[in-house]
Amino acid sequence: MILDTRKLNTLIVLICLMFISNTISGQENLATKLGYDANAKLLIIHADDLGVSHSENIASIKAMESGSVNSGSIMMPTPWVLEIAEYAQNHKDTHDLGLHLVLTSEWKNYRWRPVSSKEMVPSLINEHGYFHAGCTDTVNVKEVEVELRAQIELAYAMGIEPTHLDSHMGCLLWTNQEIFKVYVKLANAYNLPCLIESSFSNLFASESEFNEFLKSENQEVIINQNFTISEAEYANGSESYYINVLKSLKPGLSQLLIHPGYDNEEMRGMTVDHPEWGSTWRQVDFDFFMSEKCETILKDENIILVNWRDIKKTLKK
Amino acid sequence: MILDTRKLNTLIVLICLMFISNTISGQENLATKLGYDANAKLLIIHADDLGVSHSENIASIKAMESGSVNSGSIMMPTPWVLEIAEYAQNHKDTHDLGLHLVLTSEWKNYRWRPVSSKEMVPSLINEHGYFHAGCTDTVNVKEVEVELRAQIELAYAMGIEPTHLDSHMGCLLWTNQEIFKVYVKLANAYNLPCLIESSFSNLFASESEFNEFLKSENQEVIINQNFTISEAEYANGSESYYINVLKSLKPGLSQLLIHPGYDNEEMRGMTVDHPEWGSTWRQVDFDFFMSEKCETILKDENIILVNWRDIKKTLKK
Repeated sequence: MILDTRKLNTLIVLICLMFISNTISGQENLATKLGYDANAKLLIIHADDLGVSHSENIASIKAMESGSVNSGSIMMPTPWVLEIAEYAQNHKDTHDLGLHLVLTSEWKNYRWRPVSSKEMVPSLINEHGYFHAGCTDTVNVKEVEVELRAQIELAYAMGIEPTHLDSHMGCLLWTNQEIFKVYVKLANAYNLPCLIESSFSNLFASESEFNEFLKSENQEVIINQNFTISEAEYANGSESYYINVLKSLKPGLSQLLIHPGYDNEEMRGMTVDHPEWGSTWRQVDFDFFMSEKCETILKDENIILVNWRDIKKTLKK
Repeated sequence: MILDTRKLNTLIVLICLMFISNTISGQENLATKLGYDANAKLLIIHADDLGVSHSENIASIKAMESGSVNSGSIMMPTPWVLEIAEYAQNHKDTHDLGLHLVLTSEWKNYRWRPVSSKEMVPSLINEHGYFHAGCTDTVNVKEVEVELRAQIELAYAMGIEPTHLDSHMGCLLWTNQEIFKVYVKLANAYNLPCLIESSFSNLFASESEFNEFLKSENQEVIINQNFTISEAEYANGSESYYINVLKSLKPGLSQLLIHPGYDNEEMRGMTVDHPEWGSTWRQVDFDFFMSEKCETILKDENIILVNWRDIKKTLKK
């Protein structure tokens, strides 16, 4: 078969249109379900690590109340969790607070233990009973489920009504398929949306296996683009990274994971010997998302802030 | 029998001398054992609550290294204990650090759990798994022993070599005889001196029963006078209280329990809604025991600072 140039051009345009249509179909559905234009640029600006320290709590609350941050997630095993639980209770109908499920305790001189008893989760802890410092696939999957359930139950017992689930340091997302499945199953069990990206299909033998699993657990890929600053990008300047993310945001639902905190004595003590995600890093996050510059870019770029509460209402009726 | 005035006066003088001799005999023994004059005024200036927060840790370390504080005790279940454990390891031969054994978690939005599993110590915890806020005699004595042993074992596992034992909020000292006995037995089991005052005999049917118990556990009343500022005294001015304590110190071994900390964001968050032992209270403690005024009074009053390490060496060979 021989195609003339005009027909070839038409075919290319058609293929491109099909590709674009396919790419934004997920977003289109969610955006319209949420009441926005199918091509809207939707964004969640999400404060991780709530509960980890007083500095993180008060900076994140400030950035949610007076800045551009509109969501966050709570680490139940951390020392300052009751402060955020009290905040959640006092803002029951408005807050957007999920659970930042925890399997790690990464700081040198300031650590926390599982919510469940050490005898029940021996593979999750070190010789002093604290969580391991980093994600590891040596953890027992049944123990992971015991501990994550304990964290979720503690949240409800403290009066927190979580709007979503996600994962501290991504341990539940990238370690292995079995741990990811526990995470998704728990989200389904508690009828909560959770952070799932399409790239997590890498954990499965095929895309279809991944999609079938999500379907069986009433979950779906919600976030089209998930951003968090890397060490290299931080070294090059956080502000330019964040400005670039906002100015090049694509249609669909994106999430920007940040860590607002005050660069004070407590935070410097917590992050000692660890400049990455350290005290000045968190202050810079706070400063940018409190700035007028950020607010202006969001407006100029027609970025619509949506939150997990709306997503939960829409998808988890 | 009729006594003339001269004989009566002689008798009174004799009785007074016997009384004075009896009163300082304990101190005399300890003072001379420690290498000092029998009538020396010996003092431990002791920072409680180490580990409770970063603010408390760095202020107490500063007050021990550059101020007049010469001893302290560590709360093993607290979030910042690893920071003090690291300090203890780096000052193995010089530090004077005991264990401030814990049965309570008293702050509103910042709490800690037992070191042992919740299933093993159900009477020690509230509905969220934290220690109760205050001392209570509803705790099970066997569970108290399980938890205190776990705290002591954790200290050694973290490389701390405790110089003594005492009790956070005094729960082990004043609640009831059974709990006090657990405390003293553990001190004996680990061959450590511990804070015992003669007034604790109130827990026993008689002085002799109290003394027999102490003897059976190789312990003795070490501290003749134990001072800690009350809410009323704080309201009247901490500095004048401390100056008065130092200027009226009697011969024998006294201990002054203080709580140095910085009045910063973290400490204000920790002690929110609780001015007693609050953030400014701790800053005032820090300021006085860092002052030249304090140093000068100690010198002028011929007060000799001794520590628990020396007492341990002398009494626990």
